[in-house]
Amino acid sequence: MIELVAFDGDDTLWHNEAIFSMTQANFAALMEPYVEDEDLADRLFATEMRNLRLFGYGVKSFTLSMIETAIELSHGRVTAHEIQSIVDAARSMLEHPVELLDGVEAAIDAVSERYAVMLITKGDLFDQESKLARSGLGERFDAVEIVAEKNEMCYRRILTQRGIAADRFVMVGNSGRSDILPTLALGSWAVHVPYPLLWTHEHVDDERLEGFDRYRRIESLGDLLPTLDAVANSHGGEPLTG
Amino acid sequence: MIELVAFDGDDTLWHNEAIFSMTQANFAALMEPYVEDEDLADRLFATEMRNLRLFGYGVKSFTLSMIETAIELSHGRVTAHEIQSIVDAARSMLEHPVELLDGVEAAIDAVSERYAVMLITKGDLFDQESKLARSGLGERFDAVEIVAEKNEMCYRRILTQRGIAADRFVMVGNSGRSDILPTLALGSWAVHVPYPLLWTHEHVDDERLEGFDRYRRIESLGDLLPTLDAVANSHGGEPLTG
Repeated sequence: MIELVAFDGDDTLWHNEAIFSMTQANFAALMEPYVEDEDLADRLFATEMRNLRLFGYGVKSFTLSMIETAIELSHGRVTAHEIQSIVDAARSMLEHPVELLDGVEAAIDAVSERYAVMLITKGDLFDQESKLARSGLGERFDAVEIVAEKNEMCYRRILTQRGIAADRFVMVGNSGRSDILPTLALGSWAVHVPYPLLWTHEHVDDERLEGFDRYRRIESLGDLLPTLDAVANSHGGEPLTG
Repeated sequence: MIELVAFDGDDTLWHNEAIFSMTQANFAALMEPYVEDEDLADRLFATEMRNLRLFGYGVKSFTLSMIETAIELSHGRVTAHEIQSIVDAARSMLEHPVELLDGVEAAIDAVSERYAVMLITKGDLFDQESKLARSGLGERFDAVEIVAEKNEMCYRRILTQRGIAADRFVMVGNSGRSDILPTLALGSWAVHVPYPLLWTHEHVDDERLEGFDRYRRIESLGDLLPTLDAVANSHGGEPLTG
């Protein structure tokens, strides 16, 4: 039996990493005059990881890390106008239209006919609320949680608050690190819908995931409902109707 | 009768604006060689207001606004190393110890013996969660909500979710704009505990607040419990015990 199905937001319901990748490509072009041997992407990632504990996730944090990387790699030669263009890139990212993945609305609607549906998304509260509002999906969810970090503790809290047993919960998302591994570790089900782009930080080797009985992997959200029904039936429970 | 008492965090339970003010004083010193007639504080505030819609509240947003203001007011002459020092200031703010106001723990404990107590704080999710954890106050609250904006809609949602009538809710905080006016407008009670420093954005003229029957003003949280009891009795209800 399944009681609750939760969806991740970024790169599960709407495109996100593509916007970061585009900005990072522009950043590489900006830094081209300053960078010699260093691998810009690696240095930026290292700055992001160093800042994560204090800055958290999201566009503003990413922007501050780009600014620091630019100053560091250029040995202070990057100009104020070039730094302004990095801040402008942040503004563009935050203003970028929210583009849903194919079939998202139909998938949520189909699932919500049988199960309670929830959004659990990670990152900057202001940015995530704005994206949810612009996505037009808000009304489709029975509940929404925007969290600073998706780990076992976070999922446990959400389930405890709602009085839902771990094995009656299904998390649907693209990130091995944030959506799949912590929910499997908790004894829940996880349906992995990989997205073509994945931030290095979110990557988990497939072998680690495939060892779990409650791991499922689908190509797109169009395959979600049959997968959930199979999961529900595998436990002998009938899916709730209506 | 009162069912729920909610506290604001920044400058109600722990010092916050003092850290922003200190950073802003350092920023003024940094900009001193570049600024002629302009009023730096006004220009920074204007940048913050322009960015609020996209960046929201919090240290990272404030930092990006300082960087933009520095570039703008220096006509691009501010150096990369000076911009780095602005980012370093952000890091210092986020690492700054959380210092409780006097009597906070005793006040929450006393109130929680009679009423359900909650924290409703606004701003950057990551930063607020970190401050709450470092404050050591987390366990004292029956519930915590970190929200992007404290307006009538936000308070209405919180009360509706919990099935609490507006006139059985008391908000305690220092900000006229975020804590007091929206809750009074909703028909709830608001206990105003002014803090010596207030960000211009949060200011509401006293006359606007004092027109409400359910407005109370106290000098410190030490006066909270008698004020709540008077409020509870003013409605003929007995405060819940235990």
